[in-house]
Amino acid sequence: MKRISVDMDGVIANVYSQFISMHAAEFGIVLSLDEITGKPEEVAFANAIKYVTSPGFFRNAPVMNDAQKVMLKLNEHYQIFIVSAAMEFPNSLIEKQAWLNEHFPYIGWQQMVFCGSKEIIKADIMIDDHFKNLNHFTGETILFTQPHNKIADARQHTRVETWKEIEQLLIP
Amino acid sequence: MKRISVDMDGVIANVYSQFISMHAAEFGIVLSLDEITGKPEEVAFANAIKYVTSPGFFRNAPVMNDAQKVMLKLNEHYQIFIVSAAMEFPNSLIEKQAWLNEHFPYIGWQQMVFCGSKEIIKADIMIDDHFKNLNHFTGETILFTQPHNKIADARQHTRVETWKEIEQLLIP
Repeated sequence: MKRISVDMDGVIANVYSQFISMHAAEFGIVLSLDEITGKPEEVAFANAIKYVTSPGFFRNAPVMNDAQKVMLKLNEHYQIFIVSAAMEFPNSLIEKQAWLNEHFPYIGWQQMVFCGSKEIIKADIMIDDHFKNLNHFTGETILFTQPHNKIADARQHTRVETWKEIEQLLIP
Repeated sequence: MKRISVDMDGVIANVYSQFISMHAAEFGIVLSLDEITGKPEEVAFANAIKYVTSPGFFRNAPVMNDAQKVMLKLNEHYQIFIVSAAMEFPNSLIEKQAWLNEHFPYIGWQQMVFCGSKEIIKADIMIDDHFKNLNHFTGETILFTQPHNKIADARQHTRVETWKEIEQLLIP
């Protein structure tokens, strides 16, 4: 059974929705997709670091469309690990685990990994929205499109825009 | 630079000291090494699960002898990752990170991994006190002696009793 490393933020957890609404609450401006495309999150949202360290940022993030039902199928065909670079923000650990337990109850604690660097991850397939994680991975790499990576050259990875595309790609 | 996966409980954190003192506090009996040798922790200590889920169990664990100074040297010669199977006990995540920050300040958050299963870990060397982690690891395996593994056949691993032995083994 092949092993898949699935990222949380920007892949199963819709953190952009959180960034946009917290930015709107603070500045009264709802940023458009055009305004944030191609920019790192901390550039697109002036107070991004403040938001990610706010209680509830991760706990209340919406689930990405179709992630729950496609992950349920993947979990039958693959050995799934949720791998999140959570160590930078210690308070996120408990929120992220609670979020996973609520929205992905079929993912057991044995399948969760919180790390700083993903260099140490051994898997066959990695689904992630960050080049820094995918570029040093030796297996198959799937880039999940998010505003920050949308206009970057991703030829060395398989780019997907939605969880439906992941289903088509990985479910036999 | 070779990568080493270093376990926490029973390798750098002296959890037996915690078990013995909490068992003594509850039952008024200080268990001897003879009484607990060869037994899984949850057999040696009737209320082990209660203790590991008690606030402070991980946060207040003593550091294993010589671990701090040998790890400091290892950290110069190897790429060190602290890999702890912390996911089973969610409350341990914050305690373990705070403990690492206090006792191993030269280990950055980038070097910490909290997981459920260590199957997903890619490294050259693994130091651990549990066969379940070492037996499926494909690199070099170092078994750190603890009462639960002391009388088990460990011929497929390099057994060490102390951090001084790890120093002799791994520092050129």
